[in-house]
Amino acid sequence: MATAGVVANGPNNEEKQAVGIDGPTNPMVTPLLNDLYQFTMAYAYWKGGKHNERAVFDLYFRRNPFGGEYTVFAGLEECIRFIANFRFTEDEIAFVQASLPPSCEIGFYDYLRGIDCSDVEIHAISEGFVVFPKIPLMRVEGPVAVVQLLETPLVNLINYASLVATNAARHRFVAGKSKLLLEFGLRRAQGPDGGIGASKYCYMGGFDATSNVAAGKLFGIPLRGTHSHAFVSSFMSPDEITEKSLKSSDSSNICEDFVSLVQAWLSKLKFGTSYEALDVLDVYHLLEKESEWSQLLGGIFGETNQSELAAFASYALAFPKNFLALVDTYDVMRSGVPNFCAVALALNDLGYKALGIRLDSGDLAYQSCETRKFFQAIEKEFGVADFGRTNITASNDLNEETLDALNKQGHEIDAFGIGTHLVTCYAQPALGVVFKLVEINNQPRIKLSEDVSKVSIPCKKRCYRLYGKEGYPLVDIMTGENEPSPKVGERILCRHPFNESKRAYVVPKRVEELLKCFWPGRSGNVFVSSAAPMTELNPYQVHFLCASDILYLGVHKFMQPVSDGKEREELPPIKLIRERCINQLNLMRPDHMRRLNPTPYKVSVSAKLYDFIHFLWLNEAPVGELQ
Amino acid sequence: MATAGVVANGPNNEEKQAVGIDGPTNPMVTPLLNDLYQFTMAYAYWKGGKHNERAVFDLYFRRNPFGGEYTVFAGLEECIRFIANFRFTEDEIAFVQASLPPSCEIGFYDYLRGIDCSDVEIHAISEGFVVFPKIPLMRVEGPVAVVQLLETPLVNLINYASLVATNAARHRFVAGKSKLLLEFGLRRAQGPDGGIGASKYCYMGGFDATSNVAAGKLFGIPLRGTHSHAFVSSFMSPDEITEKSLKSSDSSNICEDFVSLVQAWLSKLKFGTSYEALDVLDVYHLLEKESEWSQLLGGIFGETNQSELAAFASYALAFPKNFLALVDTYDVMRSGVPNFCAVALALNDLGYKALGIRLDSGDLAYQSCETRKFFQAIEKEFGVADFGRTNITASNDLNEETLDALNKQGHEIDAFGIGTHLVTCYAQPALGVVFKLVEINNQPRIKLSEDVSKVSIPCKKRCYRLYGKEGYPLVDIMTGENEPSPKVGERILCRHPFNESKRAYVVPKRVEELLKCFWPGRSGNVFVSSAAPMTELNPYQVHFLCASDILYLGVHKFMQPVSDGKEREELPPIKLIRERCINQLNLMRPDHMRRLNPTPYKVSVSAKLYDFIHFLWLNEAPVGELQ
Repeated sequence: MATAGVVANGPNNEEKQAVGIDGPTNPMVTPLLNDLYQFTMAYAYWKGGKHNERAVFDLYFRRNPFGGEYTVFAGLEECIRFIANFRFTEDEIAFVQASLPPSCEIGFYDYLRGIDCSDVEIHAISEGFVVFPKIPLMRVEGPVAVVQLLETPLVNLINYASLVATNAARHRFVAGKSKLLLEFGLRRAQGPDGGIGASKYCYMGGFDATSNVAAGKLFGIPLRGTHSHAFVSSFMSPDEITEKSLKSSDSSNICEDFVSLVQAWLSKLKFGTSYEALDVLDVYHLLEKESEWSQLLGGIFGETNQSELAAFASYALAFPKNFLALVDTYDVMRSGVPNFCAVALALNDLGYKALGIRLDSGDLAYQSCETRKFFQAIEKEFGVADFGRTNITASNDLNEETLDALNKQGHEIDAFGIGTHLVTCYAQPALGVVFKLVEINNQPRIKLSEDVSKVSIPCKKRCYRLYGKEGYPLVDIMTGENEPSPKVGERILCRHPFNESKRAYVVPKRVEELLKCFWPGRSGNVFVSSAAPMTELNPYQVHFLCASDILYLGVHKFMQPVSDGKEREELPPIKLIRERCINQLNLMRPDHMRRLNPTPYKVSVSAKLYDFIHFLWLNEAPVGELQ
Repeated sequence: MATAGVVANGPNNEEKQAVGIDGPTNPMVTPLLNDLYQFTMAYAYWKGGKHNERAVFDLYFRRNPFGGEYTVFAGLEECIRFIANFRFTEDEIAFVQASLPPSCEIGFYDYLRGIDCSDVEIHAISEGFVVFPKIPLMRVEGPVAVVQLLETPLVNLINYASLVATNAARHRFVAGKSKLLLEFGLRRAQGPDGGIGASKYCYMGGFDATSNVAAGKLFGIPLRGTHSHAFVSSFMSPDEITEKSLKSSDSSNICEDFVSLVQAWLSKLKFGTSYEALDVLDVYHLLEKESEWSQLLGGIFGETNQSELAAFASYALAFPKNFLALVDTYDVMRSGVPNFCAVALALNDLGYKALGIRLDSGDLAYQSCETRKFFQAIEKEFGVADFGRTNITASNDLNEETLDALNKQGHEIDAFGIGTHLVTCYAQPALGVVFKLVEINNQPRIKLSEDVSKVSIPCKKRCYRLYGKEGYPLVDIMTGENEPSPKVGERILCRHPFNESKRAYVVPKRVEELLKCFWPGRSGNVFVSSAAPMTELNPYQVHFLCASDILYLGVHKFMQPVSDGKEREELPPIKLIRERCINQLNLMRPDHMRRLNPTPYKVSVSAKLYDFIHFLWLNEAPVGELQ
C-alpha cells in the first residue's frame, strides 16, 4: 500500500512525479484524447462559477457482452496512470483555445493551466474482478469541470479493455483449462493500440501468450510464434540449402548433412520401417510395410512438396530446439505432416525434440486426429518416446463457436492460436460503458430515460459482494455511502433497483467491499461553489429531509470530519491481475458462466437506496397531461 | 513529387531524416509492433543465407466488407511513415535477442542493427481510392527478411484504416450528401488509437467533423460538440445562476437578467403569443391562443424541467453564438424543446442565432418532425426569420440500417452524430487484409488452398483500372510486370483469375495505372543471394521458358538496365485525400454502390497472367492418389 501522504499535498507537478506512477502505456492518451464537449462544458461550468462544485460520477455498463452474464473488469491501471499524470501542456491549451469560440474568456485557459487530479478521488473495483451491470466499476469524485474532462479518456480506456478481457475469458472457458491459448490478433486489430491492448487484456483474461512482440516487451507477456506460409513458399527445393551441418543437442557430434538425414527419414516414413531394420528386410516385407503405412495415411502419401521440405529443414537448422512447422501450405496429410515428421525424426536422431505442428486451414478436428494417429504410429514403429504426444496447434478464424464445435466433434489439438474474432471482439465489438453524474454538491442526481435500463442509480454509493455458504458470490448490493455495511451472518434485504417485486433476504457468509480507493487525491476536501453555498440546505433538501428518514443523503456529510491520509490501493503487476481474474472466474457458480442460457447474477440495492431512487425519480419526471 | 535522389543513397539515419517523412502518428508503431514469427523467420532466412533474396509481396484483401462491393483504401501514409523510419533501436534489438532462443547466433543482431527500408520498394494504390478484392493495394519488394518484418505492421495499419473509412463512406452514402455527419465514437472505440484512427479515417471516408480533440489537433479535422446529459443534470434550478448578464451580439446593449428574459419567453411559448401583443389581449383571446399551442404540442407542454432550463440558460451565457442544446434529458417535447426555444428566442432578442438541438434517444424521426413543426410555428408566430430551419442533430446508436429506416420514415434531421457502430465497425469489425509472397528471386510463387478464393495470384504485377465510355470504371486488370500496358481504344481480353469461362473484351476510354511508387528505396538494385545465384536459370525456369511464351516472367528482368532515380509519389494532406475519396465514390456506377444486392465490380487478369497462374497451380499442387 502506498499512503496518500505521498500524493496528497497539492497539484504541483513535482509532487505528482513523486507518486511514481508512469503515464499511460500509449503516449497518445493525453487530456486532449477527449470529446470537444467536455471542454465546452468545462468552460460553461467555469463561466458560471460552477466548476469547483463537488461531483460524483459512476462509471458502469448496462449489459454483459457476448450474450453472457459476466464481464471481466480491465483497464484500471491505465486509468490511474492517466489520472496521476493529468496535466495540460501549453501546446494543448493553445489548441483548446483555438478550438473554442474566440468569445471565450482568457481566464479559462489559466484555469486549465492549473488543474490536475489532486482534487479527484477514485474508488474502483480491482482490475481482473468479475463484474456485473449497473454496479459502478469506478466512482470518480471531484470538481465537476475536472471530472467531466476525465469522462471520455476513462470510458475509452475501460471499454475495450474490459470487452476483450471478457472475450478472452470466454474463449478460455470453452477451450478448457488444459489448452494453451495464444493470442495472434495484432494484424487484424483495430489499429496499433487495439493490437497492444488486445495482447495485454487477453493475457489478463486467461490467455497464455501472444505473438505481439511489442506487448511482450511492454508487459512481460510470454511470446509465441513460428513461421508463415510465405516462409514455406519462399523455398524452391532442398538443393538451395547450402549450410547443412547441425551439431547434436549435446554437442558430441556433428551431422554434416542434415538435409540428407531428413530425406532418409522421409523415405523411411514412406515405407514405414526403421532405419536399423531396413538392411535385413526383403522386398516382400518392404512392400507389406508400405501397404500398412498407406492405409494409415489413407493412401495419399506420395511425393511430398519439396519446397515445403526445404523450408522445414531450413527452419530446423535455425531452431533445432524450437522446431514448430506450419503444415498446411500445400496439403496437410499428403505433404505437411510427413515432411514435419521427417524433420522431427532427423532432429530426434541428434537429440532434439521437435515442438510440433500448426494447422491453419481445413477441418481442424479431423486433421488433428489423423495427425495424432500418425504421430502415435511413428512413436510405436520407430520407438521415439513421446512422439505421439507431439504438440498440435490450430489456428484459422477460431472463435467461441468453433472451439465449442471442435470440442463436440472431438479433436487432438493442444494449443489454439486465436486472432481476428478474439481481438476485434467480432461477436460484439463494443461494450457500452457509461459515465453518469450521481451527485453534485451533495445533491443526488438521476438520469431518466423512457428505457428503464437506462435510468441511472443516484447517490454516492458503496458496493458489496455477498458470498453464500458454498463459497459462491450470491449477489452484489449497492447502498448509500453512509449506510452501515452488510455484516457476515446478518440478514439483509436486497432489492432489484427497478422491479419492486424482486427482493431477497441474504445472510452473507462473507462480505467483500468492491470499491477501493485507487486515487485518494487530497482526500475528502469539500469544495464549496460560490453559486450554491452548501452551508444552507436548499428547499429541495429541506423537503427531502422532512419527507424521508434516509440517512445517506449527502447533506449529512457536512457534519463529518474531513478525513485525510487515505491509503491508495496498489497497482499489481499484470501476472497477479491475471491470477486474480482466473481465481475470480473459478469462484463463480457455473450456471452464471455457461454459454447457453446462463443465469443472470443478481445485482441489487439496499431497501433505503431503493426507496430513495424512486422518490427522486418521481420528483424529476414530468407528469404527462392527457386532454 | 519528391525525387528518389533524396532517399536513395543508403541506409544511414541522417539521410533518412533528410527525406523529411515523420514517423507514424502513434509512437507505439515501431518495428517491434510485430508478430514474433517475423523475427524467427528473419533469423531462419539469415541463418540459411537467404535473407537478401529479393522478394515481392502483395498486400490485398479477399472480400469487400459490410456485404458491399467496394472498399476505400486508407492507411497508406502511416505505412510510408513507418517504412521511412524503420530502424531498430539497441533496446529493441536487446529485447528481440531475449525473446529468441539463446542458441541464435549473435551475428543476426548485428544484421538487425544494420537494416532499414532503403532496399525496399513500395508501389501502392493512392490513399482514398475505391478498391476491390484481389488487386494489390500495396506491392512490397525487397530483401525477403526485411519485407517479412514489415508484414504485421503494414497489415495492421491498413486493415482497420480501410475498414473504418469504408464504413464512413457507406454511412455517407445512406445519409445523403446534404447531411452533416459527425463522428462521435472516441469513447467506444477499441482503445485510444482506435479512437484516433477512427476520427482520421471517418473524415477521409466522407464525414464532416469529429468530437475527438486529439484527432482535431493531429490531423486538422473540424471539431464539433456541445454538452452531455450530465451537464443538464448538474443544475438544480435557474436560481443558482448568479452571473446573469449578457451583452448583445453587436455589444450595443446589455441584458442584465438573461434568465428572466428566458423565463418570459418560456411563458410566452406556453401561451403562444408574442410579447408585443400580450398587453392588448383580453383573457378570452389568451385562452384561445393557449389552446392552439396546446394542440400543436399535443397538449403535453406543462411545466418544463427547471434544472434543464438552468443548464440551457447557463450554456447560452457561456456560448451565446454557439448555443446547441441536448434536449432529451427529461422529455424532448414536454421539456427539452420548449426550454431550448425559450433560450434561443431570448438569444434572438440580443441578436444571436441559436445553432440548434441534439436528440439522443427515442423515436428520432417523429421527434425531429414534431420539433421542426414547432420551430416553424415559432417562426411564423413570432416572426423570427429562419427559426423554422434551426438545426436538428440526432445521435444514439445510429448505423447504416437506422439511417436507412429514418429516410424511409421521413425525418427533419440535419446532422447525424454517429459513434459506436461507426468506429467499431460493428457490422463487421475486421477486414481480412493479407500479405502474400508472389515472387522470390524472380521466381513467381503461389499460395494454394482448397478454398479457391484463398489462392494467391503469383508474379510481380501491374494493375490498371479501365474506364468505359460513360466515364465509369469498368474493370480492374492485373498483368505481368513486363506485359505491355492496356491502351485507350485498344481491345483487351480481361479474364476472371480462376473461372475460365468468365471473360470479357474491353476497349477502354481511359486507362489508369493503379500502383504508383510511394517508396522507391534504392530503386531497382537487384540483390543476389549466395544460396540462389540468379545469373543461372534453374531447371524450373528453363522448363517454364520452354513450355510457355509468357514474357513477364521475372527472369527477363535480368536483361533490363537497373533504373535509378525513380520518383516518389507525394503524401497529400488528409483534406485532399478526403476529396479524392469522395470523387472516387461519385465516379462509381451506382449499382456497385447500392446497399441491397450491389453488382460486383469486375476484377480480372490478362490472358497471359491467367495462363501462367494455372500453369503454376498445377505445378505446385500435389496429385492425389485414390486407391
